[in-house]
Amino acid sequence: MLSDIQISRQTELRAIADIAVQMGLKPDEFRSYGVTRAKVDLQVLPRLAAQPKGKMVLVTAITPTPFGEGKTVTSIGLTQALHQLGKRVCACLRQPSMGPVFGIKGGAAGGGNAQIVPMEELNLHLTGDIHAVSAAHNLAAAAIDARLHHEQRLGAEEFTRQSGLIALNIDPQRVVWNRVMDHNDRALRNIRIGLGNNGPERQCSFDITAASELMAVLALSRDLADMRTRIGNLLLAFDEQGQAITAEQLGVAGAMAAILREAIEPTLMQTINGAPCLIHTGPFANIAHGNSSVIADEIALGLNEIVVTEGGFGSDMGFEKFCNIKARASGVTPDCVVLVATLKALKSHAGVTASEINYPNLAALQQGMSNLAWHIANVKQYGLPVVVAINRFPDDTADELEWLRTAAIEAGADAVELSQAFADGADGATDLAKAVITCLQQQVAFLPLYNPDEGLMQSLQQLARRGYGASEVELSTQAQQQLAQIEALGGNHLPICMAKTQMSISHDPRLKGAPSGFVLPIVGLKLNAGAGFVTAFAGNIMTMPGLGIKPGYLKLDIDDNGDIQGF
Amino acid sequence: MLSDIQISRQTELRAIADIAVQMGLKPDEFRSYGVTRAKVDLQVLPRLAAQPKGKMVLVTAITPTPFGEGKTVTSIGLTQALHQLGKRVCACLRQPSMGPVFGIKGGAAGGGNAQIVPMEELNLHLTGDIHAVSAAHNLAAAAIDARLHHEQRLGAEEFTRQSGLIALNIDPQRVVWNRVMDHNDRALRNIRIGLGNNGPERQCSFDITAASELMAVLALSRDLADMRTRIGNLLLAFDEQGQAITAEQLGVAGAMAAILREAIEPTLMQTINGAPCLIHTGPFANIAHGNSSVIADEIALGLNEIVVTEGGFGSDMGFEKFCNIKARASGVTPDCVVLVATLKALKSHAGVTASEINYPNLAALQQGMSNLAWHIANVKQYGLPVVVAINRFPDDTADELEWLRTAAIEAGADAVELSQAFADGADGATDLAKAVITCLQQQVAFLPLYNPDEGLMQSLQQLARRGYGASEVELSTQAQQQLAQIEALGGNHLPICMAKTQMSISHDPRLKGAPSGFVLPIVGLKLNAGAGFVTAFAGNIMTMPGLGIKPGYLKLDIDDNGDIQGF
Repeated sequence: MLSDIQISRQTELRAIADIAVQMGLKPDEFRSYGVTRAKVDLQVLPRLAAQPKGKMVLVTAITPTPFGEGKTVTSIGLTQALHQLGKRVCACLRQPSMGPVFGIKGGAAGGGNAQIVPMEELNLHLTGDIHAVSAAHNLAAAAIDARLHHEQRLGAEEFTRQSGLIALNIDPQRVVWNRVMDHNDRALRNIRIGLGNNGPERQCSFDITAASELMAVLALSRDLADMRTRIGNLLLAFDEQGQAITAEQLGVAGAMAAILREAIEPTLMQTINGAPCLIHTGPFANIAHGNSSVIADEIALGLNEIVVTEGGFGSDMGFEKFCNIKARASGVTPDCVVLVATLKALKSHAGVTASEINYPNLAALQQGMSNLAWHIANVKQYGLPVVVAINRFPDDTADELEWLRTAAIEAGADAVELSQAFADGADGATDLAKAVITCLQQQVAFLPLYNPDEGLMQSLQQLARRGYGASEVELSTQAQQQLAQIEALGGNHLPICMAKTQMSISHDPRLKGAPSGFVLPIVGLKLNAGAGFVTAFAGNIMTMPGLGIKPGYLKLDIDDNGDIQGF
Repeated sequence: MLSDIQISRQTELRAIADIAVQMGLKPDEFRSYGVTRAKVDLQVLPRLAAQPKGKMVLVTAITPTPFGEGKTVTSIGLTQALHQLGKRVCACLRQPSMGPVFGIKGGAAGGGNAQIVPMEELNLHLTGDIHAVSAAHNLAAAAIDARLHHEQRLGAEEFTRQSGLIALNIDPQRVVWNRVMDHNDRALRNIRIGLGNNGPERQCSFDITAASELMAVLALSRDLADMRTRIGNLLLAFDEQGQAITAEQLGVAGAMAAILREAIEPTLMQTINGAPCLIHTGPFANIAHGNSSVIADEIALGLNEIVVTEGGFGSDMGFEKFCNIKARASGVTPDCVVLVATLKALKSHAGVTASEINYPNLAALQQGMSNLAWHIANVKQYGLPVVVAINRFPDDTADELEWLRTAAIEAGADAVELSQAFADGADGATDLAKAVITCLQQQVAFLPLYNPDEGLMQSLQQLARRGYGASEVELSTQAQQQLAQIEALGGNHLPICMAKTQMSISHDPRLKGAPSGFVLPIVGLKLNAGAGFVTAFAGNIMTMPGLGIKPGYLKLDIDDNGDIQGF
């Protein structure tokens, strides 16, 4: 089979303007960036507000394994199949971060015959939105340290005399706004800045841009005015009296919004078979809320019968955050959930290692099924229909596939279908698409997992028990102090964004299958007043990944035409 | 008068595709980004190689003062005037860095009625090229520290066993590749990274992206293949035996080139009156080589009668580097030089302060004239004709302007014209344009300042004496060691990129006018094997600016339509 980039490159692209017009955008509602990308103007939003809305299909997966489950391939394949069946359908996906692209997995635009094309444009910069988030985020960071520097150097009175600004007296030990970079850069996790005469000297860190609260703000904003308000509310630091300092108070919120004025517009691309896809924002689902933007969904739902989106990692991660964070901001809840599983991944949950993973092993499959069963039940407790998509690999046996199909139905799935979109594109996902169409006939009564109005502690407990199967939640001393502080700052009724490993339903990556009865430890809580959630840290979660021993960048190159080799 | 952004916003823009076609690009030689920006495809280069080339006008200035000389306004105004006179003309300008945009000066797209429009697009991201340079630069930095981390953690043998890669044994104390950020961020000048278990811990720094060697590589490359080769040659570190480690050896060069595959294409925009302008790369002229790209010039010269470009800061800075660095890479030398001066700036060189600067003061003007005279002589020693452009301000008196005109002619200028492009656009620069057209009739015999083949020390001495008026050059002990090392690495015949204050012709910002007889201290030398020059540091030059006490970002905001306020 050809490589992903070879398939992408031999695809006959349709002009993106044709895709846009076919989707129902008017000529002044988008701007083409070449013939492959277009930015959608937000002036479309008021027009669409009055339109009937399409149905929302949310793709999630079992707990990830090192073998890859193919969730994005399935999302794109499903979109391609629905498009081929004549449905007005649009995918809403996140923009890949350069961290994973150069770190581990290479491209993140699907794969095989289920891709967003041109895949190299999606994987590298696209229309620059992630860079814009980094730039706006880091402007605030530079502004904080510059203010610290000048106020300390001059003293408050002289500072005010020279600048005409009121001294903020920021406590250099209580700056809560990190810097960000869209790379896996371990060495920046823990640094000291402001050495020499550039101080005050202080300890801080870089996060990956996908973890920036500003990325979440961009993803959760309903329009420009909402984004501007949220940016103003960003909590950057505390002053020496313990009072919160916001981006508005620092005077940097307007400039940050100016930096993001194009990044707030989703980018239109196409699948291999010419279905539209809106690419927007890129929060990870372990250290952030893991879903594409409210605005992209709004546009796609206003113009299509069906919208396919995906939440990052397993249903305990991106799916949960879609339902409990994003849906609160958008008012949009899923109408049908697709849950992706593979034989290999289920065996991996039973402890089978790489050398044995390709062999039939019904006992392991039965054991690993506990993970799929948990995710099916998890989706069902939200009141949602769930279609299990078994992403079929060439060496999967018919017997095992049949066993899994039956087991999934017994576990409560509304339907189970094989997907071979990687190999066969739209054709490989036609059965899945038909099952989804059938499912979408159901009336759905969505039930969120917890009610933020009951307070943070109650929400945490509900999320730990119902969301992960924990017996209880345990706050560290620091987390308890932070809880009190967040309550004092008025954040007690915000939803929770759990920062947690994606490799287990629990906080412990070693606990495979469907763990239960464990205590979920919360080591820290952080108010994200701009995004509108409280991040809870279930253990020491890295917000800056590192490059591995043999990183993905090693195989990438360009030829003399600028064509990329190695994706 | 309206603000810059008000003027920009009320300009009736022509579709950029029309501008492109009118300039002579074929439809498949550019991609429009909306109707305001277009990327020029490098496939145009082979076609243009055979074409007759236009004339190159290089705009420079006297030594900068806090009052602003208006060099970019003059460059754009001159382009507008030449366009209005019916010439096929294109401006080639650098993309503004967010550092100055948010730090000091607000926009950097000209001003008043001499602007590149839409000015806010030029000032913020444009087509993302500077972000791409940051991303590619920082990937190499992350790759270095990841390699250090894994080799140290595992030991060389085990590292090789696990990764299949040869251990590089990089010396953590001899990493010469910094990280970069496109902001003025003082706190990142001097930092310690890799604290905790993320080491090895080491001291390092962030530079502003404009100072990145990769920015210089992008600006000096003739095509993609040349860029790829230069990236491979980038010197990143030394190993424990003192051997150089390049980006090629680290295996990151291909991925860096992939990140830059769109950034190597110039972006087409337009002036207020519809003349084409190619925006490309953004090296500063004090800490880098200070000129737009070789590729943009090549495209513009192949399609136009006249190309207007500018070198950063005074003629000792960007102009010198155009002539001695860029011209060596491109083969393109200036045909006419425009030297921008103002009455205020010359008085400032005589020590007149802000409160007195608007009053007539012939004595101060006479004294400050020494600076203009020096710059005229500097341009003439390259064998180039020079037109002095006096950027006229409303309160300038006719007497003083007349005195200056005569003095400039006496100092050797080929012509002197007033420019009022800020107030009057093309009309305000028509006389200047006519003088330039006349000047371009001259046959020019270009003389570079020094011959790199004679070796670094000889080049440094020539540059110090002829380029700045120093009596001699003095290398610190460290610089002497670095000189020996660079010679050993084969860099002895490269041109010099002086990192030096822009506020004086000398290394000392307090020395105004035309200092002479001073000793130029060189405290460090750095081999830029990718860019193809050796950076010499004349004193402790900051490669990361800081935000001031009342930064430019304070006045910026957006309204609910996303329109920017405050530029």
